[in-house]
Amino acid sequence: ILRWQTRKRSLLRWLVIFFIAIVIETLYLFISYSSATLVTFRTTFTLQFQSGWSKYVIKLILSCLYAVIAFLMVYLVPASAGSGIPETKAFLNGIRIPDIQSLSTLTAKVFGTIFAVAAGLPVGKYGPMIHIGSIVAACTSRRARLIRPVDRLLEAARVFSNHSERRDLVVAGAAAGVTAAFAAPIGGLLLAWEEGSSYWSLKVTWRVFFCATGTLLFTYLLAGSRMGPAGASLVDPSYMQSYAGSFSTGIRVANEDLLLFVGMGVLGGILGAAFNALHWHMSRLRHSYVCTWPRRLMEVLGVTVVVSTVGFLASFLSESWACRPVPPAEPSLYEDAAYVVPYLDKLLPLTCGPGHYNEVASLYLNDGVSALRLLFHLPRLNLSDDKPMFSLHALALFAGPYFLFLVLAFGVSVPSGFFVPQLLLGAALGRMAGQVVVVFGHPTYLGQVRVFAIMGSAAFVGGITRMVPSMTVIMLEATGNLFFLLPFALVLLSAHWVGDLFTPSIYDMIIEIKGYPFLRPDPPKWALAQLRARDLMTPQVVSLRPIETVKRVQEVLCTTGHNMFPLLYPSSHPTRSGALFGTIMRETLVVLLQAANFSSTASVNNDPDNPELASPVLDFAQLLESAARLSSRVIAQPVIPLTPEDESKWMDLRPYSNPSVYFVTEDSSVTKVYRLFRGLGLRHLLVLSIERDVCGVIARHDLMPNSMESKLRKIKACKNASKA
Amino acid sequence: ILRWQTRKRSLLRWLVIFFIAIVIETLYLFISYSSATLVTFRTTFTLQFQSGWSKYVIKLILSCLYAVIAFLMVYLVPASAGSGIPETKAFLNGIRIPDIQSLSTLTAKVFGTIFAVAAGLPVGKYGPMIHIGSIVAACTSRRARLIRPVDRLLEAARVFSNHSERRDLVVAGAAAGVTAAFAAPIGGLLLAWEEGSSYWSLKVTWRVFFCATGTLLFTYLLAGSRMGPAGASLVDPSYMQSYAGSFSTGIRVANEDLLLFVGMGVLGGILGAAFNALHWHMSRLRHSYVCTWPRRLMEVLGVTVVVSTVGFLASFLSESWACRPVPPAEPSLYEDAAYVVPYLDKLLPLTCGPGHYNEVASLYLNDGVSALRLLFHLPRLNLSDDKPMFSLHALALFAGPYFLFLVLAFGVSVPSGFFVPQLLLGAALGRMAGQVVVVFGHPTYLGQVRVFAIMGSAAFVGGITRMVPSMTVIMLEATGNLFFLLPFALVLLSAHWVGDLFTPSIYDMIIEIKGYPFLRPDPPKWALAQLRARDLMTPQVVSLRPIETVKRVQEVLCTTGHNMFPLLYPSSHPTRSGALFGTIMRETLVVLLQAANFSSTASVNNDPDNPELASPVLDFAQLLESAARLSSRVIAQPVIPLTPEDESKWMDLRPYSNPSVYFVTEDSSVTKVYRLFRGLGLRHLLVLSIERDVCGVIARHDLMPNSMESKLRKIKACKNASKA
Repeated sequence: ILRWQTRKRSLLRWLVIFFIAIVIETLYLFISYSSATLVTFRTTFTLQFQSGWSKYVIKLILSCLYAVIAFLMVYLVPASAGSGIPETKAFLNGIRIPDIQSLSTLTAKVFGTIFAVAAGLPVGKYGPMIHIGSIVAACTSRRARLIRPVDRLLEAARVFSNHSERRDLVVAGAAAGVTAAFAAPIGGLLLAWEEGSSYWSLKVTWRVFFCATGTLLFTYLLAGSRMGPAGASLVDPSYMQSYAGSFSTGIRVANEDLLLFVGMGVLGGILGAAFNALHWHMSRLRHSYVCTWPRRLMEVLGVTVVVSTVGFLASFLSESWACRPVPPAEPSLYEDAAYVVPYLDKLLPLTCGPGHYNEVASLYLNDGVSALRLLFHLPRLNLSDDKPMFSLHALALFAGPYFLFLVLAFGVSVPSGFFVPQLLLGAALGRMAGQVVVVFGHPTYLGQVRVFAIMGSAAFVGGITRMVPSMTVIMLEATGNLFFLLPFALVLLSAHWVGDLFTPSIYDMIIEIKGYPFLRPDPPKWALAQLRARDLMTPQVVSLRPIETVKRVQEVLCTTGHNMFPLLYPSSHPTRSGALFGTIMRETLVVLLQAANFSSTASVNNDPDNPELASPVLDFAQLLESAARLSSRVIAQPVIPLTPEDESKWMDLRPYSNPSVYFVTEDSSVTKVYRLFRGLGLRHLLVLSIERDVCGVIARHDLMPNSMESKLRKIKACKNASKA
Repeated sequence: ILRWQTRKRSLLRWLVIFFIAIVIETLYLFISYSSATLVTFRTTFTLQFQSGWSKYVIKLILSCLYAVIAFLMVYLVPASAGSGIPETKAFLNGIRIPDIQSLSTLTAKVFGTIFAVAAGLPVGKYGPMIHIGSIVAACTSRRARLIRPVDRLLEAARVFSNHSERRDLVVAGAAAGVTAAFAAPIGGLLLAWEEGSSYWSLKVTWRVFFCATGTLLFTYLLAGSRMGPAGASLVDPSYMQSYAGSFSTGIRVANEDLLLFVGMGVLGGILGAAFNALHWHMSRLRHSYVCTWPRRLMEVLGVTVVVSTVGFLASFLSESWACRPVPPAEPSLYEDAAYVVPYLDKLLPLTCGPGHYNEVASLYLNDGVSALRLLFHLPRLNLSDDKPMFSLHALALFAGPYFLFLVLAFGVSVPSGFFVPQLLLGAALGRMAGQVVVVFGHPTYLGQVRVFAIMGSAAFVGGITRMVPSMTVIMLEATGNLFFLLPFALVLLSAHWVGDLFTPSIYDMIIEIKGYPFLRPDPPKWALAQLRARDLMTPQVVSLRPIETVKRVQEVLCTTGHNMFPLLYPSSHPTRSGALFGTIMRETLVVLLQAANFSSTASVNNDPDNPELASPVLDFAQLLESAARLSSRVIAQPVIPLTPEDESKWMDLRPYSNPSVYFVTEDSSVTKVYRLFRGLGLRHLLVLSIERDVCGVIARHDLMPNSMESKLRKIKACKNASKA
C-alpha cells in the first residue's frame, strides 16, 4: 500500500508539472494573440485617416496609450517591471525577493507585456515568459486558489510545498517559459541550468525536461497542422512559430566562413560590452533623475515618442532612395523558395507606389519578429533590380538609432523582454557584415547574407547575455538547422570571452545594480588565500535555550535582525557554550508568538536528557503555511501584543527546530564555505571553534565581495596596528 | 602582473582542453579506420576461396583470431573490459577504481575495441569512446609523459592536478568522447551531466561544452567537404558521419503517430527491462562458471562462433525466399532520394543472382552501422516488386536471434560498447511495428516505416539505458532532424517509466553487480524516517594527536582500514574529546612515513596554542604527487621498515592536514547527509554529538542501501530487546 501511495504521489507530481506546462503555453498564446490584436486594432483605426501626418499622430497617441497601460501595471505591481530574468536567477540562487512570485505580479506581467509590445517599444515578449513560467510554477506549488475544478490538482501540488521542491518546480517553470517562447525545450533545460544552477540534482533535470516537453507537446497538439499534412489546427500556428522561422538545411557553411563568424563574435562581444556599460551609466542616471512615479511615466512616454518618431522620420525622409520594387513571389526563382517567399509580403510600401517597398520602413515599422524574419530569410539580391534587398545605408540608418533605442528603452518601467530587439539589431549588423564581405570578393556561394544575419544575432545576444551552451541550443532549435551548431557555438564562445574582458553579463550587472546578495560560483580570487571562515563570520551568536521564556524570544526578535538562532542548552562550563539542540528560523518564532501557545510551568528543566515537552505541539504543516503567508515586513519587525503575564511564560521550541545542522570549523577555507552555501543552497552556517564551541554564524551577505573586502581591510588594519 | 598570470593560466587551461579534444577525435578516427581496414582485409582474403563453405570457415577463423586479440587486451589489462561507462560513472560519483584511467588501459581499450568490432561480434565502438575520452583527460591531467613536443603543454596541464579539477576534466573528456562518436556535442554535454552529475558547477558546463565543441570543430576542419561545396577532406568523411546518417527534414510526424510512438516506448521499456533482467542472470552464471581466464577465452570464442554461424546459416537457409531484386538507384523515383540512394549498395547479394539482394544476409552480414542505415533509410516498399524492402519474417528471423546474441555478448571479456547493436535491434523491431501498423490500415503517408525504425531504436535504447534528456539530444543530433524532438522525448520518457517499473538501468545494474559504492541521488525512501546520522556512523573514531609518535601512526595504519583520521588534541576533560585541529588522509600518512621525516624532540607540547613545528616541513605538492603514485595495495597495507629508534620519534602532522572539516550533528537526517556527500563529493564526514564531541565518522560505504538496511535491522532488534 505504501508503494502504491508513493506511486500515486509521484504520478500526481508529474500531472502537476504537466498542468503547469499547459498553463504556461496558454499564457504565451494569450500574450501573442492579444498583442497582435491590439496592433491590428491600431492599424485599422489609423487607416481611417487620410493624411500621412494625421496617421502618424493617431498612431503615436494610441502607442502612448498602450505604453501608459503597460506603465500602470508596473505602477500597481512594481515587481513586474523589466524581464524578470535577473530576479528569477536571484531566486534560484537562494535569495528571497518580496512579491516576485505573487499572482498579482503574474497578472501585471502578462498584461503589461501585451501592451508594451503593442506600443511598438523595442521590447519583446520572450524574456517575460521565463518570469511568467516561474511565477506559474511557484503559485501552483503554493496552491493559490484559482478555480474550483483545478483545486484538487492543486491540492496535489502540496507535495511540492517544501522549499527545495518549490525551487525545483520554479526551475521547471522557467524552462517551460523558454520552451513556450522559443519552442526550444532543450534550450530551456540548458538555460535553466546555466542561469539557475546553484544547486541541481538529476531529479530537477527530469522535472525540467518533462515540463519543457509537456509544453512542446501541448503546442504541437494545438497546432496539429504544423507537424504533418493531417490534423486541423486549433489556433493560428503562426503564434507558435519560433521567432526565426525554420531554415533550409540546404544552407551550408564552409570552413573559411567559420573564421569570419569568429570575427563577428568578437565584434559582438565588444558591442555587447559597450551596451552593458551604457546600461550601467543609464541606470545610474535613472537612479538619480527618474526616481518618482510621474518622472518614470514621463520617461516611458518619452521613449515611446522618440522611438515612433525617429522610425517614422527615417522612413519618410528616405523615401527618395529607399523605394524599391518587391521581388517576384515566384517559387521557381529561389533556391529555397519555401523559406523565402512567405516573408516577402512583410515588406512595407509606406508611401512608395504599389509593387514597391521602402527598405527603411520595412525594418522600422514592422513588429520586431517580422523585421527579424525579413533579415533572416530574404536573399542578398533583389531579383527585380539585382541590388541588395537591404542596402548598406538602409541597414546603417536602422542599426545606429536602434542601438540607442535599446539603450534608452532597456530598464524603463514597463514589463518587457529584450531578446528579440537584441536579435534584430544583431541581424542588421550581421547582414551589413555579410554584404561588406561580399564586396571584398568573398565567393558568392559563401555570401549567404542570411547566415551572416543569424550569426550577427547570435554574436550580439552572446555579447550581452554571455550565455553560451543554452543560447547555442535555443538558436539551433529556433532555426531548425543542426548544421548551424558549430558556427553558433564558436560565435557565442568568442562573444562571451571578448565581452567578459570588459564587463559582466547584463543579468549579473542588473543583479549588482539591484544589490541582490547573489552568490557567484566561486569566491573572488583575492579572498582565497587571505580569508578563513573565522574572518567571515559574525562572532556574537545570539542563541536561545530550547525551552525559552516568551519575554526573551520577543526581545531577541525585536533587538536583532538575525534570521536563524541556534538552540543551546545552558552550559555548566563558564567559557564554553552548552549542548546544541538545533536551529530555529525567525519566521517560525514569529508564528509561534502569534499562536500564543505558551506554557506556564513554573519549574522548567532545560536539560538535554529531558524529552518531555513543556508546551503542547502545534501542527507543523499548518505552521509552515502560516509562516509562508507572513509578509517580509512582519517578519522583520513583528508587533505582537503580549500580556505581562504571557511574558513570564515559557515556549518549548524543540518540536519546531531543525536538528540537522551544518557546521564548518573556524579554520575552513572560503572555498569550502562557498561550496557549502552554493551546493546546498544554504542561508546560514554555524561556525565552530577548534574547541568546537559555537563561535559564529555565516550568513549569505557575509559572502558578498563587498562585505569580504571590508572584513579583509579590517584584518589588515589590525595586523598593522599590532605591528606598530 | 597577477592578472596577466591568471589570464595566461586560464588560456592554458582552454588549450589543454582543446588538446584533449583533438586527441580524442584522432583516436576515434584511428579506431574507425583500423577496424574498417581489418574487415576489408578479411573480406579480400576470404574472396580468394571459391566454395561457400570454405569462405565461411576462413571467415570464421579470421573472426576468431580478431576476437582472441581483443580478448588478449582484456587479459593483459582487465580494466579495459566492457564499455567502461559504468566505471566512468562510478569515478564521477567519487569512487576510486584502480587502473581504470591508466595509459595501459587506454591502449588496451583502443586496440581491443578495434579487434572486437572487426571480429563481427554484436558490439559497437561508441560506448568505449566515452571511457577513452575520460582516460585521455585523466592522463593529460596526470601529465603522463607521452611525447617530448607536447610535454610543455602537458606541463601546463598541471593546473588541473587537484582532485576536483581532474574530475571536471574527466567529465569533459567523456563528453568529447560522445561528441567524437556521435557528432553530438550537446548530447555529450547532457550525457555527462545526466550520468555523471554528482556535483556540478557552471565551470564544468563550460569546460565540457568547450571540449565537445573543440572535438566537433576538429572533425569539421578535417572533413571540410562535409560542410559545404568547397574544401578538400583530409580523411574519408564516412568515418565521421554519425551512425544514423542525416534525415530529410521533409519527414513529418502527425499527432496520431505520437500515440503509436508512445506505445512503442512502452514496448521498448518492457523489452529493455527483460534484457536487463537476463543480463543480471547471465552475469550471475558468468560469475559462477566463467571465472578463470581460459574459460573466459572459451566464452569469447564460443560467442564469436555462434554469432557468425547463426548469421551465415540464417542467410543461406533463407535463400529460397529472401532473394529480391535491388530497387533502381534512380533519384527521381524517390521522394528523398539523397537520403535513400546512397544506402542501396549496402544491400548484400550473398548467393542471390546479380541485381538481387538477400534480405536476411543484408541485416546479418553487414557491419552494424551499415545494417542500421539500411533499416533507417530504405523506404517501406521495394520499387521493383512493390513488396516491403524487408519482409516481416526476414526482420523477425533477424531480431529474434539477435536479441539472444546481445544477451550472450554483453559482458564477455572484450572491450566493447553496445550502443549500435541496441539501436540495430530496436530498428528491426520498430520497422516490424511500422509494417504491422500499415497492414492494419494506418494511412500510407503515415506508414513511414523509417520513422518507426528510428523510434524503435530510441525505445529499445531507452528501455535499457533509461537515459532521457541526453539520449533525446544524441538521437536528434545524429538524425539531424529537429522535428523528431518531441517524438524522441515521448518515446524515451515512456520507455524509461515502464522500464523502471521492472529493473534499474543497465549501468546501475552493472554498478550493483560490480559492487561499487555508488551514491544514488536520493537515499532510499524507507531510510528517511527511520535513520539519523547517529545510526549511520561508525562510532569508534580512531584519532591521532596533531604531533604524534611514529609508532602510533604505524600502529594505526596497520590495525585499521580507515582512510581518514581526525587530529584531536589531548583533552583535559575525562569524558569529552579534545580540540580538533583538522583531518588527515591515510595516503598522506603513508607518504610521510616513507619519507621518514621525523623529529626526535624529547618533550613534545601538544598544545593548540603552540604553532611551533616539531619536524621540518616537506613540499606539499611533491607529497601529493607521491601520494598519487602509490598503488592502492600499498596504501591499504603499507610495509615501512622502521628502526626501533625511529619508532620513538615524533611526527608533526599539522602542516599536512586539512583544517576545513565538514560536520553534521548526530541528529541530522539521512537526506542532509546524502546531500552533503553527493553535493560536495565527500568521502568522509565527522559526526558531532549534541555536546559537540567528535562521536563518529560516516564514510561512503555507510550510505549504501545494504549497510543502511543492516543497521536499521540492528536498531529494531535493540528496540525489541529493550521492550521485552
